[in-house]
Amino acid sequence: MQELGRLPGIGARTAERLTFHLLKASDKDALGLADAIRDLKTNIHPCTICYNPTENEVCNVCGDDRREKGVICVVEQPKDLLAFESTGTYRGVYHVLMGHIAPLEGIEAEDLTIDSLLERVKSGGVDEVILATNPTVAGDGTALHITGLLEPLGVRITRLARGLPAGGQIEYANKTILSDALNERREI
Amino acid sequence: MQELGRLPGIGARTAERLTFHLLKASDKDALGLADAIRDLKTNIHPCTICYNPTENEVCNVCGDDRREKGVICVVEQPKDLLAFESTGTYRGVYHVLMGHIAPLEGIEAEDLTIDSLLERVKSGGVDEVILATNPTVAGDGTALHITGLLEPLGVRITRLARGLPAGGQIEYANKTILSDALNERREI
Repeated sequence: MQELGRLPGIGARTAERLTFHLLKASDKDALGLADAIRDLKTNIHPCTICYNPTENEVCNVCGDDRREKGVICVVEQPKDLLAFESTGTYRGVYHVLMGHIAPLEGIEAEDLTIDSLLERVKSGGVDEVILATNPTVAGDGTALHITGLLEPLGVRITRLARGLPAGGQIEYANKTILSDALNERREI
Repeated sequence: MQELGRLPGIGARTAERLTFHLLKASDKDALGLADAIRDLKTNIHPCTICYNPTENEVCNVCGDDRREKGVICVVEQPKDLLAFESTGTYRGVYHVLMGHIAPLEGIEAEDLTIDSLLERVKSGGVDEVILATNPTVAGDGTALHITGLLEPLGVRITRLARGLPAGGQIEYANKTILSDALNERREI
């Protein structure tokens, strides 16, 4: 109960309920969960190319011959990579920063995988780096820092479009969203 | 109570509460509301240029000499105009369509103020038309229809940027938003 209660979003009552559920569950189910958690910590490690968690040397995306290796989408965390993969439209590869620069939280540029990204670009064959950090203060700051380091390398640098979310309503959008949508308007 | 109960979002109980509030209120307050509602229907009418509701011949925006008359932002409804005005960054003028094309609801192109928009563009002095309809199926359809009518006139046609909303998180964005953000990515 104590161990389960340490998980995020699981309070004392939920931990109790989960514990009794495991007590009643079959050996197979309960030990299956224990093994899965052990595997997670022993077999899953960052991809040696892009830092996406994987069981293998390189992750599924980096190991896929059909992906365009010349386009790198830089994301903050593995969850963001999954979000882009779920669209089914992106054909390039990724680079996971493992966070964003946040000096107040003690996260400096050196704590991220930026050096490794620069090595990938320097080693050649990269046409475009898409900075896909979150459209927040920390994400924008991180993108700005990386832009400064990439510019001398002469690679094409892009960032995600910012504006109205598809399906949204103008009357409910805030001022920043509307300003972005106006300032970045496109020719038809 | 019956009259108040007909307003949107006001049920029988709220209508009852409002009625007793007006009964207790001073003559000045209650009659002030009555006068305001009468004024609304008698004095407020669409601006003769852009269809934004106004008390005067032309609305505050169209009557302002400092606004760029060569840029017209086309919105679906007056609420959207107010949203853009609240950003404080837009310096052009507007055109209110008074809805969007929705054949299933019986709203055809002829029911909107599209003819009047075409007249404004034909009369000259217009450099750019920004199609700022909502990023929804109906809004996009309306924008497409207007684009077809404006193209022969040789005016520059733009639309609002679509992508990630400022302050949003990539992990919570849906597939359409992420696809838009990737497809419309910009050079840094």
